[in-house]
Amino acid sequence: MLKFEEQKQIESVNGALALRPEIEIIVDEIQQRGFDGIFFIGIGGTWASGMQTEVYMRGRSSIPVYVENGAEFITTGNKRFTKDSIVIFSSVTGSTEEMVKAIEKARETGAKVFGFIDKPDAPLVKLCDWCISYPMNEQLKFYMVANRLMFNNGEFPEYHQYNAQMEAHLARALVEVEKEADQWAAGFAKDKYEYFKARPDMPHYFVGGGNQWGATYSYAMCYWEEQLWIRTKSITSAEFFHGMLEVIDAETPVTLFMGEDEQRPLAERVKGFLPKVCKNYTVIDTKDYELKGISREFRGSVSHLVMHAVNNRVDAHMEEEFCHPMVIRRYYRQFDY
Amino acid sequence: MLKFEEQKQIESVNGALALRPEIEIIVDEIQQRGFDGIFFIGIGGTWASGMQTEVYMRGRSSIPVYVENGAEFITTGNKRFTKDSIVIFSSVTGSTEEMVKAIEKARETGAKVFGFIDKPDAPLVKLCDWCISYPMNEQLKFYMVANRLMFNNGEFPEYHQYNAQMEAHLARALVEVEKEADQWAAGFAKDKYEYFKARPDMPHYFVGGGNQWGATYSYAMCYWEEQLWIRTKSITSAEFFHGMLEVIDAETPVTLFMGEDEQRPLAERVKGFLPKVCKNYTVIDTKDYELKGISREFRGSVSHLVMHAVNNRVDAHMEEEFCHPMVIRRYYRQFDY
Repeated sequence: MLKFEEQKQIESVNGALALRPEIEIIVDEIQQRGFDGIFFIGIGGTWASGMQTEVYMRGRSSIPVYVENGAEFITTGNKRFTKDSIVIFSSVTGSTEEMVKAIEKARETGAKVFGFIDKPDAPLVKLCDWCISYPMNEQLKFYMVANRLMFNNGEFPEYHQYNAQMEAHLARALVEVEKEADQWAAGFAKDKYEYFKARPDMPHYFVGGGNQWGATYSYAMCYWEEQLWIRTKSITSAEFFHGMLEVIDAETPVTLFMGEDEQRPLAERVKGFLPKVCKNYTVIDTKDYELKGISREFRGSVSHLVMHAVNNRVDAHMEEEFCHPMVIRRYYRQFDY
Repeated sequence: MLKFEEQKQIESVNGALALRPEIEIIVDEIQQRGFDGIFFIGIGGTWASGMQTEVYMRGRSSIPVYVENGAEFITTGNKRFTKDSIVIFSSVTGSTEEMVKAIEKARETGAKVFGFIDKPDAPLVKLCDWCISYPMNEQLKFYMVANRLMFNNGEFPEYHQYNAQMEAHLARALVEVEKEADQWAAGFAKDKYEYFKARPDMPHYFVGGGNQWGATYSYAMCYWEEQLWIRTKSITSAEFFHGMLEVIDAETPVTLFMGEDEQRPLAERVKGFLPKVCKNYTVIDTKDYELKGISREFRGSVSHLVMHAVNNRVDAHMEEEFCHPMVIRRYYRQFDY
């Protein structure tokens, strides 16, 4: 399999899950101190991960949790963000301009900052009250924070059972998803190459809701647009029916991301609609994957990770089919703007 | 001028502004009773209007104001939405499926509901604790609510001066914007027709932030996609730099919406970037319009209405150039889905 290092990927996920005691100490301290709001601040992909965490907690928790876009935070600001607020953020390099400014502004307000910064020597590390440096697995780290917050708040009684399952099975389950998806992904990438060779201007439409929305938005933008230079439009399953549906015809390429959280019915509605007007749609449904050892009631909380695993395979094959190394950038960080 | 009824438009805006005493009585009652949160619930264009209101208040007010998507509210729900919460929404027909369910759910929780429903005999009217029925001007109505909330909360000392200016000048200023924009809009529509005749698959990119984001999102989706059947992608000025920029080349059609609120610097960054990589971009800047009688410090609060006035002219000419009556729908409400 292309770009697939099974053992390394298992270790990466298990290493992230092993951060739990460290995360718990920090979250417990935050909750013991008290706060008026928890703000996940991000930009681009990290903003999308914040959105996934917020929607995960929205229906489950009375804890005041917000998502802020870093660039909006440094311009519009937020009057409800105070010295008693907590910032949680993630950054690979710790150097993204908007994030550095946002964290500086948060500190000036007197708020406390909990950062996940992959690069342990990034200057941004020094601006954190708490910092954990471990590579990748951003969404997993955020959900571990969310789970502990909810457990401490009496909203997640299955916490220990949940963690036991994830720690025993998640890493293996995700590599199995990749293995299962690989052959399908190879065919999908081939089809896409043929399609876009004939219609290079066409955007590919990605639709998804709930914790798939962050996946949908960031997959379309950070992978296909940024890394593959293919046009996309992303839309939530809910909003699809309020305008965007009108531009779908028989040949329009649409991919629907279906997860297993509370918003699944919204994706099901899209799934029911698409075949009536389109022949060129694809449904990626996390339900099609076994996830051995993970109980049904917990599957929704990892649907976005399952989708990410499927898309890892799509990326590997897209990169090859399109002869487009995903590391190259036309503009991003190539010159001043 | 095509589809332009100056006197009628002036009366429409002035009639909306004249709702102020009625809105004030309701908002004052809401604030006297007390609440734990104000939720603007909407879907499609009405969700976008909620987003505009939230971002307007975010940097100015400590009042807990949230935007909820109606379809997400009926699936994911919101644990922080309680019997002490207030819903504010707007609906033209009062019949949108998701909104009816969302309002029913809100009432079951025991929350109070303040609706703007254009159609006074819609069944949804009966589910409101307070309802105002006056056609169109949704964004203006929401901002009038926001302004009163902030005034009562000691966050808008210029309230009376602001209202005096708007009531004396806004309606006239907006029709003057339309007159000023008309000739440019005719040329823009002609160019777009020529462009899309040659490249029908191409999406048109719309970029905007702050209170222009609702305008950007809903203009792209509810007007060009839904009503003109032209492909679009909309993105915030902030997020443009985190992926989407990579698909812009010299011929990519991009329109940047620039307003005058706190997020203007984010649009300025896009404006600085575009000419380096693209020849086919358009900037619509609300600053180019006079808005006689409206002070500089209040212009940002109506930037989205100015943009709407400009786009009214674009729509009128697009409809004619593309020989596409904007009232027709392929799918929306045409069959069950």
